[in-house]
Amino acid sequence: MRRALQAITSNLAASTGQLYRRRLPSVPRTDTLPERLLIHRYFFFSAERSPPITISTINPKVLSCDSAVHGEIVTRAKRLQQILLTKPSDLPFSEVIFCNVDDPQSLGQQPITFFREVLALCDHPELLDKGEVHGLFSLDSITRAKSIMKSIPGRTVGGYSDSKGIRSLRAAIAEGIGIRDGFSGNMEDIFLTDGASSGVHMMMRLMITSDRDGILCPIPHDPLYSASIALQGGALVPYYLNESTGWSLDVNELRLRLEAAFAAGIHVRALVVSNPGNPTGQVLADQNQREIIEFCRDEHLLLLADEVYQENIYTNKKYFTSFRKIARSMGYGEDDFNLVSFHSVSKGYYGECGMRGGYMEVTGLDSRVKQQLYKMASVNLCSNVTGQILMSLVMNPPRVGDGSYAHFTEERDNILSSLDQGSKMCVDAFKKMKGVTCNEVEGGLYLFPSIKLPNAALTAARSNGMEADTFYCRKLLDTTGIVTLPGSGFGQVPGTWHFRMTILPSQQKMAEILSRIADFHMKFMNEYRN
Amino acid sequence: MRRALQAITSNLAASTGQLYRRRLPSVPRTDTLPERLLIHRYFFFSAERSPPITISTINPKVLSCDSAVHGEIVTRAKRLQQILLTKPSDLPFSEVIFCNVDDPQSLGQQPITFFREVLALCDHPELLDKGEVHGLFSLDSITRAKSIMKSIPGRTVGGYSDSKGIRSLRAAIAEGIGIRDGFSGNMEDIFLTDGASSGVHMMMRLMITSDRDGILCPIPHDPLYSASIALQGGALVPYYLNESTGWSLDVNELRLRLEAAFAAGIHVRALVVSNPGNPTGQVLADQNQREIIEFCRDEHLLLLADEVYQENIYTNKKYFTSFRKIARSMGYGEDDFNLVSFHSVSKGYYGECGMRGGYMEVTGLDSRVKQQLYKMASVNLCSNVTGQILMSLVMNPPRVGDGSYAHFTEERDNILSSLDQGSKMCVDAFKKMKGVTCNEVEGGLYLFPSIKLPNAALTAARSNGMEADTFYCRKLLDTTGIVTLPGSGFGQVPGTWHFRMTILPSQQKMAEILSRIADFHMKFMNEYRN
Repeated sequence: MRRALQAITSNLAASTGQLYRRRLPSVPRTDTLPERLLIHRYFFFSAERSPPITISTINPKVLSCDSAVHGEIVTRAKRLQQILLTKPSDLPFSEVIFCNVDDPQSLGQQPITFFREVLALCDHPELLDKGEVHGLFSLDSITRAKSIMKSIPGRTVGGYSDSKGIRSLRAAIAEGIGIRDGFSGNMEDIFLTDGASSGVHMMMRLMITSDRDGILCPIPHDPLYSASIALQGGALVPYYLNESTGWSLDVNELRLRLEAAFAAGIHVRALVVSNPGNPTGQVLADQNQREIIEFCRDEHLLLLADEVYQENIYTNKKYFTSFRKIARSMGYGEDDFNLVSFHSVSKGYYGECGMRGGYMEVTGLDSRVKQQLYKMASVNLCSNVTGQILMSLVMNPPRVGDGSYAHFTEERDNILSSLDQGSKMCVDAFKKMKGVTCNEVEGGLYLFPSIKLPNAALTAARSNGMEADTFYCRKLLDTTGIVTLPGSGFGQVPGTWHFRMTILPSQQKMAEILSRIADFHMKFMNEYRN
Repeated sequence: MRRALQAITSNLAASTGQLYRRRLPSVPRTDTLPERLLIHRYFFFSAERSPPITISTINPKVLSCDSAVHGEIVTRAKRLQQILLTKPSDLPFSEVIFCNVDDPQSLGQQPITFFREVLALCDHPELLDKGEVHGLFSLDSITRAKSIMKSIPGRTVGGYSDSKGIRSLRAAIAEGIGIRDGFSGNMEDIFLTDGASSGVHMMMRLMITSDRDGILCPIPHDPLYSASIALQGGALVPYYLNESTGWSLDVNELRLRLEAAFAAGIHVRALVVSNPGNPTGQVLADQNQREIIEFCRDEHLLLLADEVYQENIYTNKKYFTSFRKIARSMGYGEDDFNLVSFHSVSKGYYGECGMRGGYMEVTGLDSRVKQQLYKMASVNLCSNVTGQILMSLVMNPPRVGDGSYAHFTEERDNILSSLDQGSKMCVDAFKKMKGVTCNEVEGGLYLFPSIKLPNAALTAARSNGMEADTFYCRKLLDTTGIVTLPGSGFGQVPGTWHFRMTILPSQQKMAEILSRIADFHMKFMNEYRN
């Protein structure tokens, strides 16, 4: 860059002439007709020195990216919430219930006391020197905060950290990974990030140069991945999870999709696997994970393992095993397998979404590539230090013998058991609804039931200019105030219809929600009976 | 996206054939010869289905981006720090002093008590209900924390916020802007971000589609901008600040550079102005700001105003005025002028770099463009809530009559007066050094002295394969342990040499640093005398 910059500064005209070849702009693709038409104004403005920044002159990759958070259902839900504040009598419900996101604390879940005690003490470490603090904080939260503060250069959470994160916190996370997997972790592989999503964006930016670079993504999938690939201008290469066998992942399907992409001129760089699955709730079996690892090795694919729900398991038949552990147990060492695993403080039993803590563990990639990742991280300086501390606590919670252990396990187990009950209540309720099928929720925070919509509903949706599942979710929202997201935002087998809903609401609330949905569903199916 | 996804999922082969036109890959530009050679391996691998992820197959935009944080001086400084831990007798100094970054708390500055009290209480709001808390926290920090917690949906910092940030905090920031400028702010213009840098990246992503999209950037400039433009694949269009007139910004220079860029086929989209300047320390005069605004309006340029040092002013002759205030006072309303102003919790007197709080205020852009920004923000879900709260506190610190006011102003004024003294000590010391010239530091946290290096030093640098200023900074580091950054990383008039140094160290420390630099400089100039 230094060199490039000097080349430019020493002789602007010559260097720009060389660096920036003149060529006709290609018409950017956009999704909607009005924007497509607007694009042509670009040519008009290109006669001026600087085309003003308008919807038709901004980056078309931004236009083409879709955000489920911003979809029409959520926008409408927010509008209804405003109406409830001003004219509640206009609506047939008294509350908008956001079942569309896995945001535990916004739905009433209480934070884990030990974690918050440590964070408060690190934010205001003057407290650590005061006697009165012992009446307000648990002894081990004080000890933990002291040891963390001692290990941070400058002994403050107010300084920039190393761009990968604070050394001692990365060491603590590596230790936690070692305890989890039985294979010791390496702190140099850990990049602390603002939530898992910023790690995902960093990896997409690293791999994707053009629309010839493809990423194998499950259908259905977390829209974060399609949005990130679209922003980077790459190709989403879809593979289907098999709904009829509990959203299982078939390696033959991966192979088929890879071949098709290759035939279409796309180089597939990576495979995204979500385990436990979002929005599908399945947990992968070890044998399946081994097949996926062999497939990635054979095909030179980087495995992007979204393991943010690793603590959310609701079945006795399966358990979470990290891809890292499976690879190690297959005999692959640190450098033998290209794997990036994402984790975050937002899910699990802790559910600290607002803290934006996360990490990615990068193993197997060439050290020069890791250096480039480090450089990219340094362009953002560092992730927020409070989130970094919380991530280290999540990977090293109180252990047997610690003063907070009993209270901590009680809080954790209550949350996990409530989620367990929520998942089963949902599945039971949906299975009873006519035309609805629903797989078990083995893990994660969502379920993704399938609805067999009558033809009359499809026709009505079409005449309203909507996807059929959007039509269903919209009607559900307008009738009950319950917010869910249509399956079309996540991908689904054409002709099938789904919606995504979180299992987070408390048992009592959930009973009410499910009864309202059942009631709505019956009326809907009657109204649009074939 | 939904539509695009369904197109893909319904018929992969057909859609990929259509969406991803086959074409020969162009050879990506890289800066270093070894990488340039490696690139050609891409063609070899392109015969395989998936080229493995190596330094030669990753995104060349990532390769071409340079990060000052990661430069060779900093890397070496970290190595020397390790040597001090193991074999201190090997080095002629006992401490590595990082004068390269504006990271106040890492250099010993204490955080502002009121801010940290409020953050601790928000992190652990259980404290708010306990009597003992009154002995440990100021009364108004308790009141403030209560009012903030009441205004957050779900009353927790652990939930995702609106992607633009929590409504009540945006309102508080808009209010603070109104008080600062005398023209009321609008909360809908505020996007809360993880530090200022993530806002800058978002804007570059919005505007830059290809290397035909240019951004006018000052020379010298904060390397964040060159890195962000490089990552996005755009063209940095340089304009020079005039060192001989105190790093002043001449609008004729802007016009000249804009014309040259246009002649080279580049459409300039935006103008970056840093006020107070990084690394140059100048503060713009109101009249100059008015000219800049008229220039941007005439040329359809978005003005990106980096105003993160707005509280750091050390001259009685000038004061900080926001571009927003100037535009309003010229009669331009909310919609009449395209301006994005960046601010952050990392600088000022508070210096909370690790908290990663910031905002950008977006005025004038078309509402559909703002919607696209909102969508981009939502792909990252939200910025960290602790940073959001801190940003609202910075814009609404204790006021006259508040219990914390006296203590707060004492802390603030001590810090600002120490910075004031530091800036003057530095300038005085550098002016005394032979062959060094240095402008006043009117604001900000850096100075950027110019060194007239003797020919023998230039020759020695060349034979060591270094830029001359890198050679100087490297020698300074190896001799004294003091870390500065060479001017070549920021851009400078070819043939001139500079380094960047922060004014942050305390008076006592600064005296020691400056005496060591003076000593080194004299020996260096003697050694390489012409």
